[in-house]
Amino acid sequence: MNSINKIYLDIAQIQKIVSEDLSKVNNIIIKNIGNEVPIISELSEHILAAGGKRIRPIITLLTSKLCNYEGKNHLSLAACIEFIHTATLLHDDVIDESKLRRGVATANDIFGNKTSVLVGDFLFSRSFELMVKNGSKNILKVLSSASSTIAKGEVLQLTTINDCSTSKETYMNVINSKTASLFAAAAEISAILSKKNKNIQKALVTYGQKLGIAFQLVDDALDYIGSKNLGKEIGDDFKEGKITLPIIICIKKADKEEILFWNRTIHDLNQTDKDLNKALLIIKKHKAIEETLALANQYCSEAINSLEIFPPSEEKFALESLAKITIDRTK
Amino acid sequence: MNSINKIYLDIAQIQKIVSEDLSKVNNIIIKNIGNEVPIISELSEHILAAGGKRIRPIITLLTSKLCNYEGKNHLSLAACIEFIHTATLLHDDVIDESKLRRGVATANDIFGNKTSVLVGDFLFSRSFELMVKNGSKNILKVLSSASSTIAKGEVLQLTTINDCSTSKETYMNVINSKTASLFAAAAEISAILSKKNKNIQKALVTYGQKLGIAFQLVDDALDYIGSKNLGKEIGDDFKEGKITLPIIICIKKADKEEILFWNRTIHDLNQTDKDLNKALLIIKKHKAIEETLALANQYCSEAINSLEIFPPSEEKFALESLAKITIDRTK
Repeated sequence: MNSINKIYLDIAQIQKIVSEDLSKVNNIIIKNIGNEVPIISELSEHILAAGGKRIRPIITLLTSKLCNYEGKNHLSLAACIEFIHTATLLHDDVIDESKLRRGVATANDIFGNKTSVLVGDFLFSRSFELMVKNGSKNILKVLSSASSTIAKGEVLQLTTINDCSTSKETYMNVINSKTASLFAAAAEISAILSKKNKNIQKALVTYGQKLGIAFQLVDDALDYIGSKNLGKEIGDDFKEGKITLPIIICIKKADKEEILFWNRTIHDLNQTDKDLNKALLIIKKHKAIEETLALANQYCSEAINSLEIFPPSEEKFALESLAKITIDRTK
Repeated sequence: MNSINKIYLDIAQIQKIVSEDLSKVNNIIIKNIGNEVPIISELSEHILAAGGKRIRPIITLLTSKLCNYEGKNHLSLAACIEFIHTATLLHDDVIDESKLRRGVATANDIFGNKTSVLVGDFLFSRSFELMVKNGSKNILKVLSSASSTIAKGEVLQLTTINDCSTSKETYMNVINSKTASLFAAAAEISAILSKKNKNIQKALVTYGQKLGIAFQLVDDALDYIGSKNLGKEIGDDFKEGKITLPIIICIKKADKEEILFWNRTIHDLNQTDKDLNKALLIIKKHKAIEETLALANQYCSEAINSLEIFPPSEEKFALESLAKITIDRTK
């Protein structure tokens, strides 16, 4: 449990462990964007080259190594995972009307919403084409189920926007579906590829799922505290009236005046320039970020603990480090 | 070749031939929309119940019968085809900012663009989940490839909007990708399910593809002549600056004044209330609808001719009739 106080690898060191595989995954990604319709490759390159850390494909590559997988199918499947993730990002940015992602202009801001929706569809279908070529029936089941779970989570999230009565349980359901399901699938497919037993498969699902939840909790905290590395604007979620854990915590602890504040700003989306600052003060008062990050920490520990079934190895340590990095993004 | 002058079945008679299967397909559709997230089922029911003729699933059901397929997988796969089609419709209506489909308000008009995009994603993924459960690797290849071809076609179409230099070749590429590929897949999977030889498979692909092209040509003509049954507004494509065959024909035959007219209305999208009427007069002058429908007729005949490989049967006649109905929508 005190594993969280060890010294871990940083993202560059982790990437180095799978660098050969990762560069093959990048080649598969580039090859499959194709050049038949120029705007598809332009937009895809814009978003795929925008400096994502490839965390999801790295999970597949590291867990494949952990399972001593000796084939090559993990490479295309890791590319599939990144395609699904990218398609989701494109549609997310349209939904959220975002202007910035990772510090650069979003695809919808440059290419327009219409192109973003359709290129997202293309990347989705291309990922299915790719997985059909390289995956067994069981792997296809895991990935197609993860995709529909993501979509369900996204729709559920949309129904909670501006809804101040959203429970923590519903929020956890949203982030488990929209984020953790793909992390879990990214890890699970390695167990299936390498024909490991159910216990190993279950351990990897748990690792991915807990890590995914921790990741999203930190993301939602970062929206209120910012990060110099992520190039994300502070307060995007607040401005959209998106209900995330920091807000749920504040609403639960709100006094009469704060209830009026949240109703006006989140429910009615009637905000003035000063409201974000006021929201930040209330969040500070109720220690909502600390509570959110403590929960993320707990999920991070659970992710790390789920790997206990594996003997020590470089890749196991890298997976533990990846969990730790998720938490460290706030620093 | 004069097959086009025979008397054919109408849609109700065709539906009757596969009525038992069609009602099973409808049950699979309803079951798979699910009820975990209420708005998903509400929106899906709105669009799936809006009186579509289920032409694509009917193609799968009829061709399965034509191939003497005796299993049950064609039912779920026909539902998959309808899911893919519906997802495409949802995203199409968001892209086109449509207000009406089949005479009723579009999903985006009632539920908003965001929900339409995300529920479209859900239906897409659900269709993949369903096909993974019920399809062989070869069937998955056909359907995943059709999906990515559709998306490519949609993106390509988007790049031709307002582009008065769009060639007939590019337009044919668009409709072949965005429409005909799913018709072709709907027919092809029956040959694969029933393990027929390559000639049969090729004949069914040709049937679906030619029918799909005829279908879209007629659709694009209908946009300028209307149809009392389809509840579609006249001139939607014109108002969006969408380049379809009637416009391509007119631009090719345009005199100097007409060139200025198309540049202003389609390229610059600078339109007054009277412009649609003027466009209709020019279309009439150049017989652009007649030429478009003549081409549709030709594809319809080719679709019917591709079935020559099969001996006479009720389902063969129904497939021929389905092709004929496509053309008859203008009456």
